[in-house]
Amino acid sequence: MKTISLMGATGSIGTQTLDIIREHHEEFKLAALSVGKNIELARKIIIEFQPELVSVQDYHDYNTLKTEFPGVKFTFGEEGLIETAVYEKSDILVNAVLGSVGLNPTLQAIEKGKIIAIANKETLVTAGHLVVEAAKRNHVPLLPVDSEHSAIFQALQGEKEKNIERLILTASGGSFRDRTREELVNVTVEEALQHPNWSMGAKITIDSATMMNKGLEVIEAHWLFNMPYEKIDVLMHKESIIHSMIEFHDSSIMAQLGTPDMRVPIQFALTYPDRMPLPSANRLNLAQVGKLHFQEMDVERFRCLKLAYEAGKIGGTMPTVLNAANEVAVAAFLEGKIHFLQIDDLIEKALSIHQMIDHPSLTTIQEVDKETRQYVSSLL
Amino acid sequence: MKTISLMGATGSIGTQTLDIIREHHEEFKLAALSVGKNIELARKIIIEFQPELVSVQDYHDYNTLKTEFPGVKFTFGEEGLIETAVYEKSDILVNAVLGSVGLNPTLQAIEKGKIIAIANKETLVTAGHLVVEAAKRNHVPLLPVDSEHSAIFQALQGEKEKNIERLILTASGGSFRDRTREELVNVTVEEALQHPNWSMGAKITIDSATMMNKGLEVIEAHWLFNMPYEKIDVLMHKESIIHSMIEFHDSSIMAQLGTPDMRVPIQFALTYPDRMPLPSANRLNLAQVGKLHFQEMDVERFRCLKLAYEAGKIGGTMPTVLNAANEVAVAAFLEGKIHFLQIDDLIEKALSIHQMIDHPSLTTIQEVDKETRQYVSSLL
Repeated sequence: MKTISLMGATGSIGTQTLDIIREHHEEFKLAALSVGKNIELARKIIIEFQPELVSVQDYHDYNTLKTEFPGVKFTFGEEGLIETAVYEKSDILVNAVLGSVGLNPTLQAIEKGKIIAIANKETLVTAGHLVVEAAKRNHVPLLPVDSEHSAIFQALQGEKEKNIERLILTASGGSFRDRTREELVNVTVEEALQHPNWSMGAKITIDSATMMNKGLEVIEAHWLFNMPYEKIDVLMHKESIIHSMIEFHDSSIMAQLGTPDMRVPIQFALTYPDRMPLPSANRLNLAQVGKLHFQEMDVERFRCLKLAYEAGKIGGTMPTVLNAANEVAVAAFLEGKIHFLQIDDLIEKALSIHQMIDHPSLTTIQEVDKETRQYVSSLL
Repeated sequence: MKTISLMGATGSIGTQTLDIIREHHEEFKLAALSVGKNIELARKIIIEFQPELVSVQDYHDYNTLKTEFPGVKFTFGEEGLIETAVYEKSDILVNAVLGSVGLNPTLQAIEKGKIIAIANKETLVTAGHLVVEAAKRNHVPLLPVDSEHSAIFQALQGEKEKNIERLILTASGGSFRDRTREELVNVTVEEALQHPNWSMGAKITIDSATMMNKGLEVIEAHWLFNMPYEKIDVLMHKESIIHSMIEFHDSSIMAQLGTPDMRVPIQFALTYPDRMPLPSANRLNLAQVGKLHFQEMDVERFRCLKLAYEAGKIGGTMPTVLNAANEVAVAAFLEGKIHFLQIDDLIEKALSIHQMIDHPSLTTIQEVDKETRQYVSSLL
């Protein structure tokens, strides 16, 4: 039996993690969890999974739930998130929160020797050097939950990093893959939220449409697999069936394939280094799919991807700026404050005015993150 | 430095094995080799690689070469093949001969603890139970060289056999994949020898056209990966880019991809469990390929595949009959003695009159092999 702390239980990855725990309730126990503002769903989760510790975002919700569930320990805010992450009975922390709020709790959990299943890409994007260094020092495995990184991680089993020629991240192209840049000027929020393959949260769906999601994944892959950016390629593959690949220096390519079902990489992280059956998964029938398509990625068309490579290569605090600017810009787009193409304009502006700081500490990262958010907000 | 015995040095797999040894001459030493009747090529190989032991098929060639190369030890015939296989200085035996002649030498090499790189599928098809049992008893790895089995073997690295849901062998469909059965009646030898993707020997190219090659591979996979026939599927994939796949019980599929270049699986067997660069390989560019196609296998259209599954499931001496009948029938087709569709007629007849013997010994297998060849020859 593995005991789990789950940060971000009501989100897309969170609820699918709960599906896995439910499907294998003799193997996994949910001991601690955090939720944001979806208290209605939190109640249902508490009743079903009976966790020992629950962290909520706001003090008000904390007070409400404390009265309703006297047998459960409640906590709140940033401190509450950390308490969830380091909960002493847990073996694994599943970090499924959105945004850079997941960073500090993850670092603390690593110091406590927890296995980290990481779906929160901003943690690696903004502080990959700190997370990887802490994981190495504490001999803690960093298990990717993103389908692309899980694919690479699965393909890497039994292989050696030294033999890797390059990583090939596949990209569906998102909601607007068949449109030119000119056709993107007036797209609506509703159009952007229609992802062709994956059902995901709003932020990540917009990030898929701008290709920033792939850009963040490139940076994440750089840290997870200790790979220079020159050896990370992105390939357009509209079916999202091949989830990603490794090319080895003997020219052999290992790939992981499947239907778009996030429960597979989530479960792999929870069962690693073993696998367990997942009877409810939609099995891939390639004869039924018939064809898989591949095409070069156009980085001029998808400017966010280019910006992400550039920020990653410069390194230091640049990816923090990239990520913070993107978060503010996407939120502004979702609120109808800016047009779709202004997202990458804002990110580019934020990057261009930033003076990179090398090897930033957690405090520096948090400061740069805050400053960038203020700066981009001031432009809205 | 690994020292190699190579059986079948002048064949298609043999010469490509020599390419790998040449490309990594500081890693590999060719100590012993066998050739058939291509003495002209044998001379060149001896001059270039300076082996210590060379086995030829005929006594006449043995005498000729002995005089020409006084510094090399020569041997001949069946005994010579065994001497090559068990050559004491060799760490690895690459079995790249055609037909069931490779069986006994391979068994002997396993008893001497040699690592076996196996390209000779008839060895596993006719005596899989003996080979696998001997390999297990002597703790000898059986390394597949066939592109399909190498793909599965690569996908299995770091994984557990117990987690396999099924193996998916891909099949290009061979020279006649787009023809109906009716259109196959009068095809010529020349047409059959035009394989769309792979450049291989004549026997295996005809086996690809009849789909018997895939049938033999199914039986080979059964033994190599300890997999019941119900868990081995064949999928039509005309580009031969995905070389084969494993579906695990969590629905995750691991695949190995590459251009059609046999040197990659040959090298993987020689470098296993590590990999080495292969700069001369043609790297796969999926964007350039553009599309991969998949379709169900029609076992009525490809009767040989159906016969192979049936022979495999019955087991015992049935696969020996399948293989021996096929060898005689394909030779007769190549000599212009029979039509293309008579190949599977002859195999079916041989299978239908055979009384299966369970758990056959090597002697029984050899007897059944001989009887079947006589029987099928008598029908020509």
